[in-house]
Amino acid sequence: MKVIIVGGVAGGATAAARIRRLDEKAEITVFERSGYVSYANCGLPYYIGGIIEDSKELTLQTPESFLERFQIKMKVQHEVTAIHPERKIVSVKNLENGQEFEETYDKLLLSPGAVPTKPRLSGMELPQVFTLRTVEDTLRIREYIDENQPKSAVLAGGGFIGLELVENLRELGMDVTIVQQPEQLMSPFDPDMAAFIHGTVRKHGVKLALGHTVEGFVQKEEGIDVLLEDEAPLRADMVILAIGVTPDTHLAAEAGIELGIRGSIAVNDRMETSIPDIYAAGDAVQIKNCVTGRDALVSLAGPANKQGRIAADNICGGDSHYQGSLGSSVIKVFDLTAAVTGINMKTAEQEGIDADYVILSPMSHAGYYPGGKVMTMKVIFEKKTYRLLGAQIVGYEGVDKRIDVIAAAIHAGMKASDLKDLDLAYAPPYSSAKDPVNMAGFMIDNIEEGRLHQFHMEDIEKISQDERVIRLDIRTKMEYAGGHVDGFVNIPVDELRDHLDEISQSRPVYVMCQSGLRSYIACRILSGYGYECYNFAGGYRLYSTIKQDRCLIEKETLCGMDLS
Amino acid sequence: MKVIIVGGVAGGATAAARIRRLDEKAEITVFERSGYVSYANCGLPYYIGGIIEDSKELTLQTPESFLERFQIKMKVQHEVTAIHPERKIVSVKNLENGQEFEETYDKLLLSPGAVPTKPRLSGMELPQVFTLRTVEDTLRIREYIDENQPKSAVLAGGGFIGLELVENLRELGMDVTIVQQPEQLMSPFDPDMAAFIHGTVRKHGVKLALGHTVEGFVQKEEGIDVLLEDEAPLRADMVILAIGVTPDTHLAAEAGIELGIRGSIAVNDRMETSIPDIYAAGDAVQIKNCVTGRDALVSLAGPANKQGRIAADNICGGDSHYQGSLGSSVIKVFDLTAAVTGINMKTAEQEGIDADYVILSPMSHAGYYPGGKVMTMKVIFEKKTYRLLGAQIVGYEGVDKRIDVIAAAIHAGMKASDLKDLDLAYAPPYSSAKDPVNMAGFMIDNIEEGRLHQFHMEDIEKISQDERVIRLDIRTKMEYAGGHVDGFVNIPVDELRDHLDEISQSRPVYVMCQSGLRSYIACRILSGYGYECYNFAGGYRLYSTIKQDRCLIEKETLCGMDLS
Repeated sequence: MKVIIVGGVAGGATAAARIRRLDEKAEITVFERSGYVSYANCGLPYYIGGIIEDSKELTLQTPESFLERFQIKMKVQHEVTAIHPERKIVSVKNLENGQEFEETYDKLLLSPGAVPTKPRLSGMELPQVFTLRTVEDTLRIREYIDENQPKSAVLAGGGFIGLELVENLRELGMDVTIVQQPEQLMSPFDPDMAAFIHGTVRKHGVKLALGHTVEGFVQKEEGIDVLLEDEAPLRADMVILAIGVTPDTHLAAEAGIELGIRGSIAVNDRMETSIPDIYAAGDAVQIKNCVTGRDALVSLAGPANKQGRIAADNICGGDSHYQGSLGSSVIKVFDLTAAVTGINMKTAEQEGIDADYVILSPMSHAGYYPGGKVMTMKVIFEKKTYRLLGAQIVGYEGVDKRIDVIAAAIHAGMKASDLKDLDLAYAPPYSSAKDPVNMAGFMIDNIEEGRLHQFHMEDIEKISQDERVIRLDIRTKMEYAGGHVDGFVNIPVDELRDHLDEISQSRPVYVMCQSGLRSYIACRILSGYGYECYNFAGGYRLYSTIKQDRCLIEKETLCGMDLS
Repeated sequence: MKVIIVGGVAGGATAAARIRRLDEKAEITVFERSGYVSYANCGLPYYIGGIIEDSKELTLQTPESFLERFQIKMKVQHEVTAIHPERKIVSVKNLENGQEFEETYDKLLLSPGAVPTKPRLSGMELPQVFTLRTVEDTLRIREYIDENQPKSAVLAGGGFIGLELVENLRELGMDVTIVQQPEQLMSPFDPDMAAFIHGTVRKHGVKLALGHTVEGFVQKEEGIDVLLEDEAPLRADMVILAIGVTPDTHLAAEAGIELGIRGSIAVNDRMETSIPDIYAAGDAVQIKNCVTGRDALVSLAGPANKQGRIAADNICGGDSHYQGSLGSSVIKVFDLTAAVTGINMKTAEQEGIDADYVILSPMSHAGYYPGGKVMTMKVIFEKKTYRLLGAQIVGYEGVDKRIDVIAAAIHAGMKASDLKDLDLAYAPPYSSAKDPVNMAGFMIDNIEEGRLHQFHMEDIEKISQDERVIRLDIRTKMEYAGGHVDGFVNIPVDELRDHLDEISQSRPVYVMCQSGLRSYIACRILSGYGYECYNFAGGYRLYSTIKQDRCLIEKETLCGMDLS
C-alpha cells in the first residue's frame, strides 16, 4: 500500500506514525510545504517571548527521526500542487529546486491545515506587518524583534494565538495594543466571562481597542500607522495579524472534493472525503459540533491529532469513527487561566436552544488551606431537558481541571444537575469537599427542583425600573457601601428575618449578594415566608466586572487613554 | 417539624444548613460531642505543621454563625447518649455540666462519624501516645509538640491522615518513622503505584518500617519504646496512631438500628436507616461501591457532604438518592500528588473481576513548554467488557485533574477505550494535544483491537526463566548500560529492522523499553513481520521502581538503616 500525506504537522504527522504502526509494509510519504514537520503550533508564541528558548524544541520530530524510527519519507519544502483522483496521482513541486514530479498513491490523506486569514487591506505587504502560523512565521517575527528592537506592537485580533502572543510581547517589554472589530476578545466565551479576561489583559498593561475596524497600514518614517475607521490612526513599530484562520483547501477544491462550510473539506466520521481513497484531517476539515450536531470548524491540536489517528485506522482497513468536537480549549492569559467546553449562550441562542446558566465563584481549593484563589464558573444547560451544554471558567489554579471534568460529562451525555453526584477527589490542597463542579450541579439541581429562580445581567435594567418589584442587596453594610446597584435596598442576610415586615408579601423580590451564594440563602428564607424570590446569578462581583468592562470599552479611545 | 442531628461536622453540618434552606419553619438542633462544629477534618494535619497558622481557620462555621444565619441550635459539648425510637426521643448529656435531658424529634439524623481505631496494646494510655481525629486531638498534639519539642516520632499506620501528618512533622524538623504491618502505604493503591509513594516518602527523610507489627509501648526515661514483633524496639519521643477509623455506631446499635459491615449503620440510598424517621450520613454509614456494587465504607469528606444533602432533602419530604462512591481521593505527599478513583487490581481480584490495566508515563503538559513533569498513570478495566474500573496516578502537576476526569468517566459508565475520544482542553502550559487520559484510551483501544499484547511485573520472573521466548530491551545502548533486566537482550528500536534475522520467528518476543512507548512501536514493527509480541506495561522505569522498593522493604531494619 502506497500512502501519500499532504501536510506533516499535527494530523498528518500523527496519521503517518499510526499508519506505520498498523502496517509495517506500507510505503508512506509526507509532503510538507514548510521546512518543518511535526511542529508545535501551540508553542510558537512562547518562542517569541523566550519562554521556549531553543527553536529546536518547537519540532517534536524531524524528517530524520521519522525515517529512522518509522521508515516514513518526510519531504519538507515540497508542495503538492494538484491531485488527480482519476489517475490516483498527485503533482508535487520541490520548493528548493523548483522541480516538479508526480507520485502515485493508493490512499491519500489531506492534512493541509489552515492559513491565517488575510483581509484585503492596503499595506499588507509592508515589512512590519506579520502573521503567525508556521515556524517560519515565528522565526521571522523573532528575527525582526531581535534586529529592530520594536518598542510597540499592534495586534489585530484577539483570539487564542493573539492573546498568547500578547503575553509574550509584554514579556519582551513591548507596548501592545489589541485592536479588533468585535467588542469582545476570545469569541468562544460569552461577553460576561470575557470581561474577566479583558480585566486581566488591561491589568498587565495591554491597551484594548475593541469595536474598532482596521482599514489598512501606512509606512511612516518611524513605524507604521494602523488606519482605523472613524478614528485617528494607531502608531506602532510592528503589526501582527491574528484575526483567525481559513481552511487551506484550494487543492481539494480543484480536485473536485466536496467542500463544507467556509470552504472546508467535507468528510464523514471516518474522515473520508467525497472521493474514494482520499481522506482528510485537521484544521481544514468540517466536523460535527457534538452539542449542536451542526457542522463546525475547529482549529485545535487535540481534534487534529484524534482525526489523524482515525484516518490512519481507516486507511489501514480499520473502522474508526470521529465523534466530533466540543471545542474544549484553554488558554493562559498572563496569570489567568480561561477555559471553555461545549457551547456558550451566544451559540445556544443562534441555534435556537432554550438555555439557561448558573454562575458561581468557588475557591480553587479549600479556603482554609493557603493559596486558594477564586474562579468564576459559568455552566450552561438546556432549560427543558437539563442537558449539559457547555461551561466557561476563568481563574487560576484548577480551572483546566474543572473544564475537563465538565467536558467528560458532556461527552458522556450527563444531565447538568447530575454534576452534583460526581465523586471527585478531595484533599485541602486540591479542591473542596464540595468541588466547584459539584456546586454547579447543586445549583442546577435547585433550579430543576424549583428551589432556585434566577435573574441575569440582561434582566437588571428592566428590574431596576420596575416599580412593582422589591430589590434587595443582602450583603453587609460595608460591602453595600463599597458599591451596589442603584435601586437595590440593603438588608444584610443575617438581619433579614427581623425585617420581613418591611417587605411586602405581594411583590416579587429580586435579591443580590456578592457572588450569588448568600442571596440564595436569603431567597430560601424569603420563600419560607411565602415570597416569590429571584436570585442574581453571579452576584455583584459579576455585575461590577461587566459594568466596568463595558464602561472601559466605550471610553477606550486610542490616544492617551488612561486605563490604569 | 423538629429535627435532631447527632454530630455537627461534614454530614451533619451540611444537612442542618440544607434543611433550613428547604424548610424555614423547621426546628433544628445539632448535638455535637466535641467543642467544635463544621470543622475541617482534612485540614488538621496542616495545622500541626503550621501550614495552616490559625486554629480558627479549621472551623468553617461556628455555633454562633449557624444560629445567626440558619437559626440552627448547635449544641457543642453535648453527647447524645441514647435513642428511644418508640418514643421518638433522644437522651442528651451536657458534657460541660453533666446535666442530662431528653429531646423529642420528628426526624433524627445520625452523623456520628468514625473514631480512630485503637488496638488493644499495652501502653496506649501513655501521655506520648496520640491519635488524630478531632480538633481537640490536633490541639493536644500541637500543644505537646510546642511544650516538649520532641525530636522524633513514630507513626503507626500509613494511610491518608498518617501521610499528611508525616509531611507536617517533617516540616517541624522531626525524625519520623512509619511502622505498620502491611508492606505498603496507602492501601487504595496497588503495590506498584505505592512504590512511587514510598520513594517520595523516603526521599524526604522519612524512615519506613513496613511489614512490622507493633506490640505495645513502654515509657522510658527518655522517650518511649515502640515494641515490635521479632524486632528490637523503636525509640521515639512521641507516637501517633493512625491505623484507620471505625464507624462510631454504638448509639445506633443500642437503638436497634440495623448495622452493616464492620459495625457501620446500614442505610438505603435515601440515607434512611432501618427505623422510620431515622436517617444517617457520613463516615458511620455503609454505602455502595459504584464499581463493584458491594457494600463499602468510605471515610471521605466529599461523600459525607453529599449524603448530608441527600438526607436533608428526604427529611424535608423530597426524594433524593445517593449513588454510591468511587472512593475518589487525592493526597499531597511532600511534592508528590497521588490520586485514585474506582477500584484497584487488588480489589478486582478479590471481587473476582477479570481485570487488566495499562501503565503510562505521560508529561503533565507539553514537553516543549517549561516545567512539565512525568506522572505515572495506571488505568484498570474489565477484560471482557472493557468497562472502566479505576485509575491510580502519582506525579506532580495535573494528577488531580486526570483522576477527576476518569472519575467522571467511570461515573458516566464509559468504556475504558472511549477515553480516547474525550475532547479535553489543550494549551502547552496545561496538557498535551494527546492528553494523558486520551493516551490511556489509545492504549486500551489498541488492546481491544488486538494490536497490543502486554506482560506485567508478575510475569517477569516466569518469562525471564523461559528458554523458549525471546527477551528484548529496545532502549538505547546507553540506557541499557545504565540498568536492565537480566536476560533481556539489547537491540535499540531504531536498529530493530536491521536485526530481524537474529530474532527467531518461531518464538514469542517479550519487549521492554523505558516507559512502554518505544517497546510498543517495536512490537508493532515485529508484528508487521509476523512475530508474536508482548509489551512490558510501564517499562523499565516501573520495573526498577518496584524492584528498588521491594529491596528496601526487605532491607529496612529498624536501627541504623541507610536508605539514602
